[in-house]
Amino acid sequence: MLLSEIARQTGCTLSGDDVEIQAVADLGQARSGELAFVNHASYLPALETTRASAVIIKPVWKHACKVAALETDNPRLAFARAARLLNPEPPIEAGVAASAVIAESAALHASVHVGAHAVIGENVRLDEDVRIGAGCVIGDNVRIGAGCRLHANVVIEHDCVLGERCIVFAGTVIGADGFGYVKDGEAYMKVPQLGRVVIGDDVEIGANTCIDRGALLDTVIGDGVKIDNHVQIAHNVEIGRHTVISAFTGIAGSTRVGEGCLIGGGVGIRDNIEVAAGAVITGRSFVSSSISEPGVYSSSVLIDTNRNWKKNVMRFKQLDAMAQRLNKLEKALAALQGGQTDQPDQQT
Amino acid sequence: MLLSEIARQTGCTLSGDDVEIQAVADLGQARSGELAFVNHASYLPALETTRASAVIIKPVWKHACKVAALETDNPRLAFARAARLLNPEPPIEAGVAASAVIAESAALHASVHVGAHAVIGENVRLDEDVRIGAGCVIGDNVRIGAGCRLHANVVIEHDCVLGERCIVFAGTVIGADGFGYVKDGEAYMKVPQLGRVVIGDDVEIGANTCIDRGALLDTVIGDGVKIDNHVQIAHNVEIGRHTVISAFTGIAGSTRVGEGCLIGGGVGIRDNIEVAAGAVITGRSFVSSSISEPGVYSSSVLIDTNRNWKKNVMRFKQLDAMAQRLNKLEKALAALQGGQTDQPDQQT
Amino acid sequence: MLLSEIARQTGCTLSGDDVEIQAVADLGQARSGELAFVNHASYLPALETTRASAVIIKPVWKHACKVAALETDNPRLAFARAARLLNPEPPIEAGVAASAVIAESAALHASVHVGAHAVIGENVRLDEDVRIGAGCVIGDNVRIGAGCRLHANVVIEHDCVLGERCIVFAGTVIGADGFGYVKDGEAYMKVPQLGRVVIGDDVEIGANTCIDRGALLDTVIGDGVKIDNHVQIAHNVEIGRHTVISAFTGIAGSTRVGEGCLIGGGVGIRDNIEVAAGAVITGRSFVSSSISEPGVYSSSVLIDTNRNWKKNVMRFKQLDAMAQRLNKLEKALAALQGGQTDQPDQQT
Repeated sequence: MLLSEIARQTGCTLSGDDVEIQAVADLGQARSGELAFVNHASYLPALETTRASAVIIKPVWKHACKVAALETDNPRLAFARAARLLNPEPPIEAGVAASAVIAESAALHASVHVGAHAVIGENVRLDEDVRIGAGCVIGDNVRIGAGCRLHANVVIEHDCVLGERCIVFAGTVIGADGFGYVKDGEAYMKVPQLGRVVIGDDVEIGANTCIDRGALLDTVIGDGVKIDNHVQIAHNVEIGRHTVISAFTGIAGSTRVGEGCLIGGGVGIRDNIEVAAGAVITGRSFVSSSISEPGVYSSSVLIDTNRNWKKNVMRFKQLDAMAQRLNKLEKALAALQGGQTDQPDQQT
Repeated sequence: MLLSEIARQTGCTLSGDDVEIQAVADLGQARSGELAFVNHASYLPALETTRASAVIIKPVWKHACKVAALETDNPRLAFARAARLLNPEPPIEAGVAASAVIAESAALHASVHVGAHAVIGENVRLDEDVRIGAGCVIGDNVRIGAGCRLHANVVIEHDCVLGERCIVFAGTVIGADGFGYVKDGEAYMKVPQLGRVVIGDDVEIGANTCIDRGALLDTVIGDGVKIDNHVQIAHNVEIGRHTVISAFTGIAGSTRVGEGCLIGGGVGIRDNIEVAAGAVITGRSFVSSSISEPGVYSSSVLIDTNRNWKKNVMRFKQLDAMAQRLNKLEKALAALQGGQTDQPDQQT
Repeated sequence: MLLSEIARQTGCTLSGDDVEIQAVADLGQARSGELAFVNHASYLPALETTRASAVIIKPVWKHACKVAALETDNPRLAFARAARLLNPEPPIEAGVAASAVIAESAALHASVHVGAHAVIGENVRLDEDVRIGAGCVIGDNVRIGAGCRLHANVVIEHDCVLGERCIVFAGTVIGADGFGYVKDGEAYMKVPQLGRVVIGDDVEIGANTCIDRGALLDTVIGDGVKIDNHVQIAHNVEIGRHTVISAFTGIAGSTRVGEGCLIGGGVGIRDNIEVAAGAVITGRSFVSSSISEPGVYSSSVLIDTNRNWKKNVMRFKQLDAMAQRLNKLEKALAALQGGQTDQPDQQT
């Protein structure tokens, strides 16, 4: 593809010679015929020595660029667009594999692809261009919107709904029962989980993730939500549009996360709380109470040598006692000074 | 089903007119013909406006209820029972799917259901009413007790045992090798994992969970244990009866958890320790040492604004130094006061 | 097998009568004909009463051993070797299951085993003695080296590479897309993930683990790496040789972990950092910044009663204020003493 054509389709300004581009590449490893990008001034030295035929840059870095350039204020976005232009998804041919098992009542659009050994339940509806990977199991009454792609061995339990253009990676389970019990003597009785999982459009869900069905009402994932591998979304959770959830994050029952949140990896969000739209939760935090306004929130502790950590972590258990000793000291000192302490206890 | 019949089968007292009930529902969304419940006084205002035909309540709330009521001291339990009455598990017909692959030596009760593309190994025994989902792979010599249900794509490795009426959700792996190695030069040598996983009756196991086989002895899960999605139970762990384990909890090798424990989400329990029967571990805790008596235990830190957190988390690394400075101050002050400090260092 | 033969093959010195050994066993449960081991002096009392026919011990414990002994400085290693001698992997016969679906262009060595319902894509190459479990899905162009074993329902996406003698447990997904997006208005645009996963020789990967493909370059796992269940390795991560990674550990994008590291369970390692070769990270730590030299590192907090924890955890949010009050006190006291404080603020 000509660089000028890439410029046109990515909204960049071409500076330098028009060249033929075969592929996108990392700036350091790029060869002739490849297009790289620079997103930060720290890469400008590498820009001087790159063998890429062209680089996407910000206009202010033009002076450092010896090769053809595509200029834009957002090189990362333009590079992603170029990468998609140069690497279109390989087409998956329409058709149902001979080994797939399709219920008679299922309604499959003629353009649908169903992979080997997939199982499609009663009354399932698969819309235009849906691609179901090998070994997927789709429960009764599931509806999957146009353009969705399920990778191998995905399981979607009965009655769940996916919008259009969703991507679900291998091994993910959508619609398993929520974790609900009532104590009955010493044992626990299972509470029937009668809701569904309802997923919007353009949602991407990683591998080996679980989204549980609701107990009475539904679990709801908004349009454009991006969910990583190994995520747990419990029953009756609601996730607002365009929220991003990284790996190993768990969101407990009935919690509502607003739109446009950024949730780091390994985050835990407790049950029955609300996280405001636009909140950013840094990795490994535990959201122990509702967050009522946008902003950046954290709660992890930082790595240290085991030797130092051991001394400090024991003191964590003495924190309240230390705070009380501090109070006493302040009072005693004030008495010695003949005045009042100006640092009252801040405990609430 | 008539409300009076539900009253009879759930052990409630009917107050008001007998009505026909079609379904259970959330109090706020219930319509005519539906049964809701109130478990907390905070829902009494919603009780006044509900369109449900009947509500399960505690006797003391009778005054607030304008519709037919089922009275009981435990509305949640009665509601769960009613939900099960009104939503019996859809029957899964007996029979082996044509695409399933069953070893000749496997012994399947005539009532067993085996789904499409399931694989059943040599000498497997499936008892009455066992239901094996599509795509499950059951290793050689596995025994599965009466009434068990495995959802799709579950893997049970050779020689493992499930009791009666267990439920296993999709993607779960029971009996993978424990994570055992011995250093041999710079490399690690695999230690053969020769034990099994032995699971009791009425155990429920969520989706994408792993329970590893024992190294020499077995990994053992007691009767009535409830395990959520994304749980890791390592080799030789023993879990006591009726213990509940929430999502993302990991229990490391050879640890023993007692009966009737409640373990929150995202909990880590280290290897080779014991957790006393009846212990409650709140979410995101790290059980870093044995717990010898029942009670509630915790170890997380709480969410804060990133701005505040940054200031405080740096101080965590100074905690021991702060404690020592506190000691010095107390001694110096005591010297000034002409006496001894009454707050000796509490470090142990 | 004769004990003398086991001694010869494990490099131990036989002391006492030569006996026939049928199996390895736990010291406490061993019966006649079985071989146990002692790795720590605390088991010497059990050694006196064991019914094992032979025990692997250190030479210094010979006095406490009433039965035949295999003496070695590393009883655990010798026991692991003996366990492998006595429990060879059951042979899996060569051949492709009738229900497997193999692309015409795939190249399978004659010794390969492919289980029921497995799916092998275009141009896949499976070398000598590769064993593919039931329900596995192997994408186009994947190469799997000699002696690899994949358990059931493993998914390997297109173009990924496994070295020789790797073991992958059930439900694991190798080569799903990395979690990469660029903000485009209020939505996020997917960045094509064009790299592969490249795995060395003798790598073991647990159940339900995910290793994502690289964005432009590859995700790389070195020889001899051992990875537990429920591990997340993000795009472009590199793991050095013989590093061990326990369950629920997540390693974020582009991070490089050196050779010979030991990473405990539930560890989080942030993106774009480096962990030095030989680093040991204790369980539940959050590696929030690069580690530049070998050593033991930690960052968890310890379990406490909920009552104590509640008091202390609230103080965590006051740590910076407490440190500042400490500074003030020291200055005020120094002024009273007529001198300067000898404990300056340690904040950096």
